[in-house]
Amino acid sequence: MVLGGGGFIGTNLCKRLVASGFTVGAFGHSPRFPQELRGVDWHEGDFSNAAAVAAAVGTSEVVFHLVGTTPQPANIDMAGDLERHVIPSLALMDICRQAGVRRIVFVSSGGTVYGKPRDVPTPETAATDPIAAYGISKLAVEKYLALFEHLHGLDYRVLRITNPFGPFQVPFKSQGVIAAVVSRTLREERVEVWGDGSVVRDFIFVDDVVDALLSAATDSGNGRIFNVGTGEGRSLLEVISLVERLLDRKVRIDFKPGRALDVPVSVVAIDRARALLGWSPKTSFETGLQRTVDWWRTRPTYRAL
Amino acid sequence: MVLGGGGFIGTNLCKRLVASGFTVGAFGHSPRFPQELRGVDWHEGDFSNAAAVAAAVGTSEVVFHLVGTTPQPANIDMAGDLERHVIPSLALMDICRQAGVRRIVFVSSGGTVYGKPRDVPTPETAATDPIAAYGISKLAVEKYLALFEHLHGLDYRVLRITNPFGPFQVPFKSQGVIAAVVSRTLREERVEVWGDGSVVRDFIFVDDVVDALLSAATDSGNGRIFNVGTGEGRSLLEVISLVERLLDRKVRIDFKPGRALDVPVSVVAIDRARALLGWSPKTSFETGLQRTVDWWRTRPTYRAL
Repeated sequence: MVLGGGGFIGTNLCKRLVASGFTVGAFGHSPRFPQELRGVDWHEGDFSNAAAVAAAVGTSEVVFHLVGTTPQPANIDMAGDLERHVIPSLALMDICRQAGVRRIVFVSSGGTVYGKPRDVPTPETAATDPIAAYGISKLAVEKYLALFEHLHGLDYRVLRITNPFGPFQVPFKSQGVIAAVVSRTLREERVEVWGDGSVVRDFIFVDDVVDALLSAATDSGNGRIFNVGTGEGRSLLEVISLVERLLDRKVRIDFKPGRALDVPVSVVAIDRARALLGWSPKTSFETGLQRTVDWWRTRPTYRAL
Repeated sequence: MVLGGGGFIGTNLCKRLVASGFTVGAFGHSPRFPQELRGVDWHEGDFSNAAAVAAAVGTSEVVFHLVGTTPQPANIDMAGDLERHVIPSLALMDICRQAGVRRIVFVSSGGTVYGKPRDVPTPETAATDPIAAYGISKLAVEKYLALFEHLHGLDYRVLRITNPFGPFQVPFKSQGVIAAVVSRTLREERVEVWGDGSVVRDFIFVDDVVDALLSAATDSGNGRIFNVGTGEGRSLLEVISLVERLLDRKVRIDFKPGRALDVPVSVVAIDRARALLGWSPKTSFETGLQRTVDWWRTRPTYRAL
């Protein structure tokens, strides 16, 4: 059962699970690419509706919890973020416990839970001092998962994913900068960039994220929290320059003031996932970006919807 | 303004503030010892009522946030704990920001935010892996305070207080083990103890806690989070044995099964508060316990109410 299965990572995960022969259900608001969810038992609903979540979870063996808010709205309405994300996650844990779900795999945020990191690449053991409400609520869910395992034996894994990109990502509420740069440039539109483009991010191709999710679903080790990134950072300006090369077209940028919630550098250490999940990213940034560009070129008018 | 001013620490803090000549307001549900709050401008209200909190905060310079749930109910209703504690704390931060409050001093939990500590005594930099929902919500408020300083410049201090004891503490929902042991033994009643009494706690006399709160209200250093304890642990059985000596009476114990939310050892390192707040505990455990016993002896029928 993929909660948030209609989003970017969810769509990619569902496709892979179906292709691998699993019985797959998904839950969420109207999926962005319904035609891609062939073979998926789709449950339409709001994550705050515990009865709907319980019906979707049913007798699932593994629940992927990919339901997320986005960084900017969370900062504007922090209480609402708790109400829409953390409280329903607590209800989900109760549902999974009662339904005998074998494991919850939770998608957390490698880019926000650490805040301004002292060590780069940042290991899982680093201090967690988010400068965005989004990171605080992700962290709270992580802590409650650990508590549910302690109190009730509910098994879980947390993946702190950095900046994923690839097919089926559409620019949405300031998330998905690569999708925005590629699609807007193909449409000959200008791109808004917060800050001067010097922020460094750990961009990871979505196929590698899906690999990590599958490893986390079946892993039998003692690790619980894993960074999922590439361990390598690149600045937004470097990304833009590579997009220009691949599209053979100038990216036209409107620089906006930097945002308080953006850390200057976010790159994670992935030694733990390598060692304990046997996972490592396989797609070079250039290859991933080429595939992303190729996907956008297949979209009529370079629009997602 | 002392939010939660009618409780155990709140009553002690209010008395000290009044005695020191400050203009003192307090907010909360009906105080347990109203006659002790002479000179305090009392505001009756529920912490969830943002308008009532805003009216109480008014033009206060410093807000002490002592409103707390208790460990056991928080574990039973984790979502309710978020709704009653964390979400109103977010509203409080907004209120303080708009009212121009100079600083929030927040009482966090030295006994639960760390979970099962790897290092004892535990420093503030240790991992925070609570095994009680109470610790998770305290931690969330700490993180939001840091975020509010980052976003809005709202100043704050966090005191992670261990196990306070002393006058005006009454046994309540399994908090206040010393108060329970002393008062029930004076009344010749049996005492319930969770587990075998081997749990080790860092008991700190409430006058020393009040000293720390005052230091944190005026400190101008760069530290934000401070452990407040004695740095020394003693087991519940040791405490009981000292109570027996002071009362010259046998404590009759009903041992109950241990609780999943109790860590075996909780003792904090207080080097940071010593160095940055210039604070240290002044009252020996024996002296504090004697004063607690003396206080209970002044209560008619050894009852608080």
